[in-house]
Amino acid sequence: MSEDRITEQLAFLAEIDALKSVVRQSRIVDRSRRENSAEHSWHLAMFALVLADDETVDTARVIKLLLVHDIVEIDAGDAPMHGNHDSKEVEARENAAAERLFGLLPDDQAAKLSALWREFEAAETPEARFAKALDRLQPLLLNTLTGGGTWTENHVTEQQVHDRYGPTIQRGSPILWRQAQDLVRRHFSDANDGL
Amino acid sequence: MSEDRITEQLAFLAEIDALKSVVRQSRIVDRSRRENSAEHSWHLAMFALVLADDETVDTARVIKLLLVHDIVEIDAGDAPMHGNHDSKEVEARENAAAERLFGLLPDDQAAKLSALWREFEAAETPEARFAKALDRLQPLLLNTLTGGGTWTENHVTEQQVHDRYGPTIQRGSPILWRQAQDLVRRHFSDANDGL
Ligand SMILES: [Ca+2]
Repeated sequence: MSEDRITEQLAFLAEIDALKSVVRQSRIVDRSRRENSAEHSWHLAMFALVLADDETVDTARVIKLLLVHDIVEIDAGDAPMHGNHDSKEVEARENAAAERLFGLLPDDQAAKLSALWREFEAAETPEARFAKALDRLQPLLLNTLTGGGTWTENHVTEQQVHDRYGPTIQRGSPILWRQAQDLVRRHFSDANDGL
Repeated sequence: MSEDRITEQLAFLAEIDALKSVVRQSRIVDRSRRENSAEHSWHLAMFALVLADDETVDTARVIKLLLVHDIVEIDAGDAPMHGNHDSKEVEARENAAAERLFGLLPDDQAAKLSALWREFEAAETPEARFAKALDRLQPLLLNTLTGGGTWTENHVTEQQVHDRYGPTIQRGSPILWRQAQDLVRRHFSDANDGL
């Protein structure tokens, strides 16, 4: 390892500190504040460490995909799930962000980390599909633990939850979607009871 | 995967959300607030993904050690580096925390994650030594980027920085300690120039 190489690596690691200031819509479990994308990425990596273990996917790869999946938000911002976006515009912003941010690294690592981010986005490998499923399951779990969270705030119906979370979770892990449906059913049934 | 198994796994993943509320001493780079242990763990996992790549250690294992290394703080709290602690008392609190928190998981996974945490704490394997080095390097980097950070707050001298960070970083990665020394030297020389 040359000194120049480490200097580039540390510059990248200093720059991505900014992911701690990208605020998402979900609230943390104690409801005190909204979650940021850095702690969200740690939480997802823990979801992978625990849940990928029981699936036929490469757990370490799922973890790496999730560690890098939101880094582009430093420049491109978080695109909330229950909002309207011009997906072409979001894609262009995120591509430019990937180029700038991963470009801070030595060339070989810029290529490696960009490849991880692209693999996640493409959702074609089993690992990327599973990672995408966890990225939907985690806010679903947070919402059921915080009185509906972003669903309540955005007047999202039980049917809309199925439509917006179901396909991605089901595609990555049918058994997790089966269990998630129980959580959703219980949440909306309690909400209807006025609890 | 049985439903009961997933229920236990999700209960653990909900419980560790609390790591997002454990506040450390270091400030994030924009100096707006102190860092929490969940986002710190993500940042360290990224340090591993980038820096372990060039060393003769198993990168995926270093990442896993770092993802779990602070989870016990949920019950035991963070023990600031530049403070005085009864290390026996800290150890007892952390052991009890590990038992309760990892104990929420199915038995096989409770054993696995406890083993990762113990491996990190023991600092005997090359992966654990490298992980410990990163856990020192990251706050060192943050301090040099935030006008001295916890060093300035606690009147820590250049010699004390060498004594408190050096052995652990050197033991995990001599080349990273060589580079870190440059950062430290430059910081204290600028500070002495009144910059
Ligand atoms: Ca390696």
